[in-house]
Amino acid sequence: MNFCSACGAQVAQKIPPGDNRLRYVCDACHVIHYQNPKIVAGCIPAWEDKVLLCKRAIEPRYGYWTLPAGFMELDETSHAAAVRETLEEANAKVEILNLFAIFNLPEVSQVYMIFNSNLLDLNFSAGAESQEVSLFSEDEIPWDELAFLTIRYSLKFFFEDQKKQSYQLHTGDIIGRGANHRFLTGPKTRY
Amino acid sequence: MNFCSACGAQVAQKIPPGDNRLRYVCDACHVIHYQNPKIVAGCIPAWEDKVLLCKRAIEPRYGYWTLPAGFMELDETSHAAAVRETLEEANAKVEILNLFAIFNLPEVSQVYMIFNSNLLDLNFSAGAESQEVSLFSEDEIPWDELAFLTIRYSLKFFFEDQKKQSYQLHTGDIIGRGANHRFLTGPKTRY
Repeated sequence: MNFCSACGAQVAQKIPPGDNRLRYVCDACHVIHYQNPKIVAGCIPAWEDKVLLCKRAIEPRYGYWTLPAGFMELDETSHAAAVRETLEEANAKVEILNLFAIFNLPEVSQVYMIFNSNLLDLNFSAGAESQEVSLFSEDEIPWDELAFLTIRYSLKFFFEDQKKQSYQLHTGDIIGRGANHRFLTGPKTRY
Repeated sequence: MNFCSACGAQVAQKIPPGDNRLRYVCDACHVIHYQNPKIVAGCIPAWEDKVLLCKRAIEPRYGYWTLPAGFMELDETSHAAAVRETLEEANAKVEILNLFAIFNLPEVSQVYMIFNSNLLDLNFSAGAESQEVSLFSEDEIPWDELAFLTIRYSLKFFFEDQKKQSYQLHTGDIIGRGANHRFLTGPKTRY
């Protein structure tokens, strides 16, 4: 951030009075430009023992498989965002059931919210951001070609719960990337 | 938003190619300035049968009572945000237990994430944003002087669950304000 989006003057990084973090502040109109994490909302569209995945036609992770998910928009709920993303990426209609997973990704300032859902029919097809969409049972999942760690953990927990026929909320933090990442289960924070 | 924060040129509202929403777009450097909902993270600091509330010393809702909660910052997890807010607003140290409530407020583009927590000791005091902090049992809660509907529903569900000695995740959408608001339980969205 270089310029004030309100008045166009240059901004500087400083700690505002009463604050304890560096913010972008406009010296001309005194607006403080806060920046905050984003929510990525998505779902696991289930049909019998299978789930719908999308092969990405956009960067990042072009050509890798993902659950339908994307940045939540202004003026919508998290579950409406999941429904919208599923329609946009897979032309698929779902009924949202319950919140299934929440992952914090502090290193990229994102919070994932993934819902369980039922696919309402089999009239799905690749949306503009997908090359291909398809149903996969657990042993058909392309585990080595998944786009994001959040997708891998969502699917891992989903199939574990599917075996138990009991779906619980899964929460955790994903720290680091690739083979060196750590998954920290649950909110474990103590002052 | 009037000016591009990257290059300082004027922005215009338009629907970018491949998109379906109005965005602020810079005609000079072509950056699209996306805007997204914010997460408010907080907790219910419990001590025996009581919970800690803070009387606000800032607007909005100056003088009304709230749970410690505030906007999640970049680079942190949602539960770390709840711990930080509790320390800032009440100088109180908590151990976060589990995610207790998630509320969508689409009309103000916020998602609340409220955690159950245990207060670690009684050495709390008003932080800079609070006039006063105090412990309340259910029948002492100032129900008519609570700052936000999210706080009212968090406390209502907390004391209901306290009676059952079983704390579950509560999810819902809050639509409208004041006496005319509606609380829609759970994610209920179907294409």
